[in-house]
Amino acid sequence: MGNPYYECPLPVTIPPAKPFLESIKLGIKETLFPDDPFRQFKNQPASRKFILGMQYFVPILEWAPRYTFEFFKADLIAGITIASLAVPQGISYASLASLPPIIGLYSSFVPPLVYAMLGSSKDLAVGTVAVASLLISSMLGKEVNPNENARLYVQLALTATFFAGVFQAALGLLRLGFIVDFLSHATIVGFMGGAATVVCLQQLKGILGLVRFTHGTDLVSVLRSVFSQTHQWRWESGVLGCCFLFFLVLTRYVSKRKPCFFWINAMAPMMSVIVGSVLVYLTNAEKYGVQVIGHLEKGLNPLSVSELAFGSPYMVAAIKTGIITGVIALAEGVAVGRSFAMFKNYHIDGNKEMIAFGMMNIAGSCVSCYLTTGPFSRTAVNFNAGCKTAGSNIVMAAAVMVTLLFLTPLFHYTPIVVLSSIIIAAMLGLIDYEAAIGLWKVDKCDFIVCVSAYIGVVFGSVEIGLVIAVTISLLRMLLSVARPRTFLLGNIPNSMIFRSIDQYPIANNIPGVLILQIDAPVYFANANYLRERWIYEEDEKLKSTGGSSLQYVILDLSAVGSTDTSGISMFKEVKKNIDRRGLKLVLANPRSEVIKKLVKSKFIESIGQEWIYLTVGEAVAACNFMLHASKSNNQVADEFDAHNNA
Amino acid sequence: MGNPYYECPLPVTIPPAKPFLESIKLGIKETLFPDDPFRQFKNQPASRKFILGMQYFVPILEWAPRYTFEFFKADLIAGITIASLAVPQGISYASLASLPPIIGLYSSFVPPLVYAMLGSSKDLAVGTVAVASLLISSMLGKEVNPNENARLYVQLALTATFFAGVFQAALGLLRLGFIVDFLSHATIVGFMGGAATVVCLQQLKGILGLVRFTHGTDLVSVLRSVFSQTHQWRWESGVLGCCFLFFLVLTRYVSKRKPCFFWINAMAPMMSVIVGSVLVYLTNAEKYGVQVIGHLEKGLNPLSVSELAFGSPYMVAAIKTGIITGVIALAEGVAVGRSFAMFKNYHIDGNKEMIAFGMMNIAGSCVSCYLTTGPFSRTAVNFNAGCKTAGSNIVMAAAVMVTLLFLTPLFHYTPIVVLSSIIIAAMLGLIDYEAAIGLWKVDKCDFIVCVSAYIGVVFGSVEIGLVIAVTISLLRMLLSVARPRTFLLGNIPNSMIFRSIDQYPIANNIPGVLILQIDAPVYFANANYLRERWIYEEDEKLKSTGGSSLQYVILDLSAVGSTDTSGISMFKEVKKNIDRRGLKLVLANPRSEVIKKLVKSKFIESIGQEWIYLTVGEAVAACNFMLHASKSNNQVADEFDAHNNA
Repeated sequence: MGNPYYECPLPVTIPPAKPFLESIKLGIKETLFPDDPFRQFKNQPASRKFILGMQYFVPILEWAPRYTFEFFKADLIAGITIASLAVPQGISYASLASLPPIIGLYSSFVPPLVYAMLGSSKDLAVGTVAVASLLISSMLGKEVNPNENARLYVQLALTATFFAGVFQAALGLLRLGFIVDFLSHATIVGFMGGAATVVCLQQLKGILGLVRFTHGTDLVSVLRSVFSQTHQWRWESGVLGCCFLFFLVLTRYVSKRKPCFFWINAMAPMMSVIVGSVLVYLTNAEKYGVQVIGHLEKGLNPLSVSELAFGSPYMVAAIKTGIITGVIALAEGVAVGRSFAMFKNYHIDGNKEMIAFGMMNIAGSCVSCYLTTGPFSRTAVNFNAGCKTAGSNIVMAAAVMVTLLFLTPLFHYTPIVVLSSIIIAAMLGLIDYEAAIGLWKVDKCDFIVCVSAYIGVVFGSVEIGLVIAVTISLLRMLLSVARPRTFLLGNIPNSMIFRSIDQYPIANNIPGVLILQIDAPVYFANANYLRERWIYEEDEKLKSTGGSSLQYVILDLSAVGSTDTSGISMFKEVKKNIDRRGLKLVLANPRSEVIKKLVKSKFIESIGQEWIYLTVGEAVAACNFMLHASKSNNQVADEFDAHNNA
Repeated sequence: MGNPYYECPLPVTIPPAKPFLESIKLGIKETLFPDDPFRQFKNQPASRKFILGMQYFVPILEWAPRYTFEFFKADLIAGITIASLAVPQGISYASLASLPPIIGLYSSFVPPLVYAMLGSSKDLAVGTVAVASLLISSMLGKEVNPNENARLYVQLALTATFFAGVFQAALGLLRLGFIVDFLSHATIVGFMGGAATVVCLQQLKGILGLVRFTHGTDLVSVLRSVFSQTHQWRWESGVLGCCFLFFLVLTRYVSKRKPCFFWINAMAPMMSVIVGSVLVYLTNAEKYGVQVIGHLEKGLNPLSVSELAFGSPYMVAAIKTGIITGVIALAEGVAVGRSFAMFKNYHIDGNKEMIAFGMMNIAGSCVSCYLTTGPFSRTAVNFNAGCKTAGSNIVMAAAVMVTLLFLTPLFHYTPIVVLSSIIIAAMLGLIDYEAAIGLWKVDKCDFIVCVSAYIGVVFGSVEIGLVIAVTISLLRMLLSVARPRTFLLGNIPNSMIFRSIDQYPIANNIPGVLILQIDAPVYFANANYLRERWIYEEDEKLKSTGGSSLQYVILDLSAVGSTDTSGISMFKEVKKNIDRRGLKLVLANPRSEVIKKLVKSKFIESIGQEWIYLTVGEAVAACNFMLHASKSNNQVADEFDAHNNA
């Protein structure tokens, strides 16, 4: 066997087998430490290593010594700006989570301080987020009624925050941050849009001044709840709400058009709160059905370690809530940190950020704070206000501290309806229909993922939407591995280049040779399919050429990154089948992982190393050479016969 | 922008966008009907279509008219051979499933008849299998004690069989048969080996003549159960068992060495049963602690439609058992059918086989049969005995019918210990340590999957082992997508070929140009990773060259089969980052799916179509051209400066 006539110009190299432990080590490094975070530690004395290590885990030690007055001025302005956003949003989102409003303020005090020490983003502004707040209220609200059993509910929320923090820190420490990448952009667009829709619907309670309201978050139960008690609607509340909403949306629009007016958008919620409170105070509107916040405790965060309900029968619910909200919060926080780092061209280590978020939430849960992360809106304001370092978080925390110590009584008359307007205005920005249109244009499948997430959240529940979207995303990825495409290659005229005939209609078929290419690793999940598929392609080619002229089947393995034992068995079966038909199997450009396994499984011996070529071009040249050689041999034989017969 | 000097010789073709519905249709066809099962129906008159359709769904209509006496002689011999195996194995496996022995005989009567009509394999011999039997007993045994509540237990087993059939038929009808492919070869080796070990351990009960025995299937509880009652061991039973086991293993060894003696192996179980029964009858051994089968009802399968326990509180357990055993049975049956079809060079449609298995089990569950499939051992015997069509199954069914009608009293004195020996002898063949060694040699990861499945089954339970193995297999696949490898390419001397420097150490770096290649689709799961990775590679290259000479980054997209919107965003960010460093991004050989999305997302406009090349070679040539052009411009400028200064 073999082709003794045609000399292979460039043999395919078989890389030496690596020792098992080394390849395992390399694999683990590539999976968990692809960014090689400790490369700066190499070849350093121990004392330097210690300092670098401290700076690595507590970045404030790195930037604080270089902190200048210029930086402070910038951070002061940015910090005060985000504080004016943090106070009303904190109160609003706490009520969205069915928690006492004061917990929202607490959550804007300690976590930003922790993040300022441990976080590596210069732009991220820490705070509570609407979607996680909604998730807490919908998941824990199923277990414990926040109105009837307020203390237990708060305990559970703090416990969930604690577990969210533990989970986040664990993901970061174990370098498993890439799990968050499995929430694709499309999933997040759909999920966030759905959650924002649900949150807006929930605010109908505040806007219409309703007292009783459904605990469900889906569209159907909310609308039923709203329209079943039309006689309870309060027009005073409604008018007030619509006015504030209009004001907030207008300021948002203005600052979107002119980014230099970002402060209008940033100050608008605080303005609304002040105007709303003054209005209520002057008109005694709370007696006419406009609900107000009421009494807020003065003073800083009370300790809450003893409140963490580890022994409670609702532990499982708390852990589940913690993990789900923790992942959602991480996905938002890490993505926000990364995008702003891209703007300013510095690097963020996602795993390190996760540890920072985790520590922030663990610390927070011990001092009466619920789940915080880096919300996009507040970070954008921080960025536009010109923050230079995480120092702006410290300024914000100081401002919130002053509020907690002295200003809480001023919120007594703040109407709930203003809070609802603030939430709705913030949520409208999250319904990113333009992104959804973009998905539709570029990738229909991503659009389907996005819409499923949206529908799942709006008509089912937040968890259902999330599960649906992640499942579809994963299924799509598995399907792309399970059903890789096989391409027929042809020769681009006047070149040695071979490309898919589908994509390049000018490419020519080579008579007598079938060239197949696949675009995925060959794994157990697709081995059966590929075998059937290739046999089908051979059949088609045999049929179209009348069954006589096909002699060589070339498999172009350029795009086959790796394979497993099922893949190898499949290759063996394909070889057997090709042999049985009297054809010859030729391989082109197997990559190092594949050729290693072909050697180990001894398949290479059965195929013959001289039938493995570096490029499709060379493989085709060899086949053509053989075809002509056998043809001329036949001719010689024919002529010999003719001569004898004559 | 652009390179006006260098003319691209062969532009990359952008295929026309397909209408949405057509691409959806194509995608569905490729996913569910890759083998195009209805292609023979095209361009046929309606009557012919009807006949072809009937023959498609009931293959006996196709082969029966062409049945010859030659075929019948072959099938008769093969059928009687497998019947002699079916009777003792049927009884043994039924007792393994904690079912009355007679149900094992029933299950060798009706299902083979159904399969003979609907199945498309010519070699498959239908029967019960040990692993599925064990699964039934371990899963249902947890819910209902088969000794205390025998009737309910039988009802649940029949119901589980019914649901297994429904699930199997549904998978086939919905063309979702590829789900079975997700059980990789490595998973099955480990799982089967583990299950065989567990089954052997369970047989210690029969061999040692124990009366009480644990319901657990794991190694620890079985060994504890065996050694906690050493005083109950029956030496008579043990000696008998060891003798028969030795005989069976010996015959197995002989027929493995000389395939023409296959009938020795096939007849050995029946011989053991006869010898054992005669021995017990003559010596009255049942009075000395050797347990016997006892009374077996004469007569054919009773109807059992009314026994299907649809309203039972244990429905969920029955459905779960049905689905798991159904999938396991399918995996074995379809794989066995396929491999023997490969031998004889005919084709089997996996989805059609699933419908046949499903109908066989649905029908079986209505006439007192439990789960059947195509076991490997029995099919191998059928194949070696020279079967020609599924007719051998009909012969076997007829032989079993005769047994049921007239011969059941003969089994009264058959000792249980013989059945245990038969099971152990069959199971030893399933512990395929040679395959495991092969996995270790070729692919360590597959070996880990295999061993995990084995350990999971032996130390946990059958379900745990299965879940562990499938999870590891899927995780590995997801990881290979989440962590694709990036290769640095270099030029193979004296050619226009570019290959990975890792694999081909002779490949040369091109000064001023960084060439990166990836080997997987770019999806949301790896987009973040790839961005970080590429920036890291750029940094390394910049560092190694002193930061001055790098000017071009070429991405070789040959192996990127497709991408999604997250991938596109990643490309945009990489482009931004490259621009910011004053470098130029060049793409080589984007495939049709990728270039379509690059066009739709307008990314191609920002990169410039003139920077996209058909091959890496051309991209490098263009870059070199530009490098020299700019260098000579600089030289001109330098000379000009020098001139002026002089």
